[in-house]
Amino acid sequence: MKKSSGISMKTISEIAGVSTATVSRVINHLGGFSSETQKRVETAIREAGYVPNVMARGLRKNSLPYIGIIVPDIINEYFSKIVLRVQVALAKEGYSVFICNTDESRRQEQTYLSTLKNMMICGLVCISGYGNAKEDWPDVPTVYIDRHPEHKTEQITIIESDNRNGGYQATEEVLRRGCKRVAILMDSRQISTCVARFEGYRQAIEDAGATLYEDLTFHVQKVDFQNAFQAVTTAMQTGKKFDALICTTDWLAMGALKAFERANIPVPEQMKVVGFDNISISEYAAKPMTTIHQDVDEMSRLAVDELIRMINGKPCLRKHWMVPVSLVRRSTT
Amino acid sequence: MKKSSGISMKTISEIAGVSTATVSRVINHLGGFSSETQKRVETAIREAGYVPNVMARGLRKNSLPYIGIIVPDIINEYFSKIVLRVQVALAKEGYSVFICNTDESRRQEQTYLSTLKNMMICGLVCISGYGNAKEDWPDVPTVYIDRHPEHKTEQITIIESDNRNGGYQATEEVLRRGCKRVAILMDSRQISTCVARFEGYRQAIEDAGATLYEDLTFHVQKVDFQNAFQAVTTAMQTGKKFDALICTTDWLAMGALKAFERANIPVPEQMKVVGFDNISISEYAAKPMTTIHQDVDEMSRLAVDELIRMINGKPCLRKHWMVPVSLVRRSTT
Repeated sequence: MKKSSGISMKTISEIAGVSTATVSRVINHLGGFSSETQKRVETAIREAGYVPNVMARGLRKNSLPYIGIIVPDIINEYFSKIVLRVQVALAKEGYSVFICNTDESRRQEQTYLSTLKNMMICGLVCISGYGNAKEDWPDVPTVYIDRHPEHKTEQITIIESDNRNGGYQATEEVLRRGCKRVAILMDSRQISTCVARFEGYRQAIEDAGATLYEDLTFHVQKVDFQNAFQAVTTAMQTGKKFDALICTTDWLAMGALKAFERANIPVPEQMKVVGFDNISISEYAAKPMTTIHQDVDEMSRLAVDELIRMINGKPCLRKHWMVPVSLVRRSTT
Repeated sequence: MKKSSGISMKTISEIAGVSTATVSRVINHLGGFSSETQKRVETAIREAGYVPNVMARGLRKNSLPYIGIIVPDIINEYFSKIVLRVQVALAKEGYSVFICNTDESRRQEQTYLSTLKNMMICGLVCISGYGNAKEDWPDVPTVYIDRHPEHKTEQITIIESDNRNGGYQATEEVLRRGCKRVAILMDSRQISTCVARFEGYRQAIEDAGATLYEDLTFHVQKVDFQNAFQAVTTAMQTGKKFDALICTTDWLAMGALKAFERANIPVPEQMKVVGFDNISISEYAAKPMTTIHQDVDEMSRLAVDELIRMINGKPCLRKHWMVPVSLVRRSTT
């Protein structure tokens, strides 16, 4: 049975006893109809065996009310919170939001981007650090959050924390408490957020007239608890001397704290530790952690606002939003 | 410019100098081609201005290599871990996986299901508890994880933890340690996982010859830290007497522990607490928590295996997988 042949929205509207405009609203989940009307239209669709011609409609309007979100690591609460906030806000506006978890893989991201292109989404939210979706795909409204694409251009719209200031505040906090040899633990990749945090760290040390020890920059290949634990353990075993550690995420700080506990180094007495993100675990952990709070709610709100403006053909209020961060002082400094 | 008119896969294959089968493989992300071939095909597609006729192809084969995952709460690590494992495994098999976060909303889930239907996905993974996707949509291979749909039928394929045994083990643990008045904190909705955990709790009390106090079942409207904190605080303020609390998730237990701390009730001395899930926070929290470990890796593996079997037209190995759980004893009992 060729389901879509000969059955039009008009047929559905006649069966359901509503206007074709209403049928269209129901099919596109645009709201503005009662649940009873929805039920009648859906029943009529089933009765008629109608399959909306997504492709034809999509080509005509050139997009569908779908939005893609590219996210690198859905189990990191910092990312999952952004995704949740963005999804809930966009759902209220009638969009179906598809979350695409790339697991930090460039290839996976490319696959998703071309699939989303085929799906004719009308907007994209990108937390990536890799490909520049904007170059491959200039006509789809796109908002970047958190990480800059590799090839930053003037054209992109990006919402980010003031990461440089975050790195600065974290480092200032431990210098203020008398630390002399401040180490930093970060992603080995040159991701914009990390680069900015490192730059803040460097600047704070310089401004304080302290010394920046080049051998006190520690890297992890993958940003997680286990890799942080290993990196810090190795640093100690190879004789690195430091009295404070700035971590570019809370999960890195969690792994570091475990390494110090194992090595019987008391925190904060002999070692001060600062995280970054202010996710739940930093608050509820055995040793509640001093960290840099990122305003996830504000970032998500701005991203949704700007994306909807773009979808509606309006210019962005701003191309570049820098959201303030703040130091949350707990028991590791 | 009418992009898709007159341009066929054949044209692309001629421009790229590869077979039409290869063009198809590249467009559908099926792997089995070099990155150089991919680049050539993609360049040819751009040169020709070709838009793959998703709809037409979809109708012919009746599906595309897209898979939807319905998930109720992406910021709960228990769910996000399942989603991550499932997504990574399916990506390896060449599928694009779209994560649909319903925020526990029935309406949002229905919207997603009909959108996914329009997208002609070839498979669905459903963590829901609401609608029975299988009834609305009998021909799409579907695997349920964790929660049963409201109208359970013989036909569905479901992978779940042995929740009843989990509730039993949790309760047995505190009874064994001498607790007499064991309370339980759970979702107010009748979700299958919760119902089974409650049943295990009830059975353990019965088997031990202890008393089941009906006023010691506490409910939350939304399963999170804050609601748990409130519910337990209210229970204490209204004079409920209990010496142990079984919580149906780790986040509920976190909120409960906070309430006991505020009320100066020492855990585990005067109050024993058991969580459920064994997410990171249960291990790293100030008071590492006794909890029931759910084998997320095994559940995800089974779900992916069964889904791929169904997509390939093979019967499931089993319709109903019950994955064992285990008690992880830490410092709250």
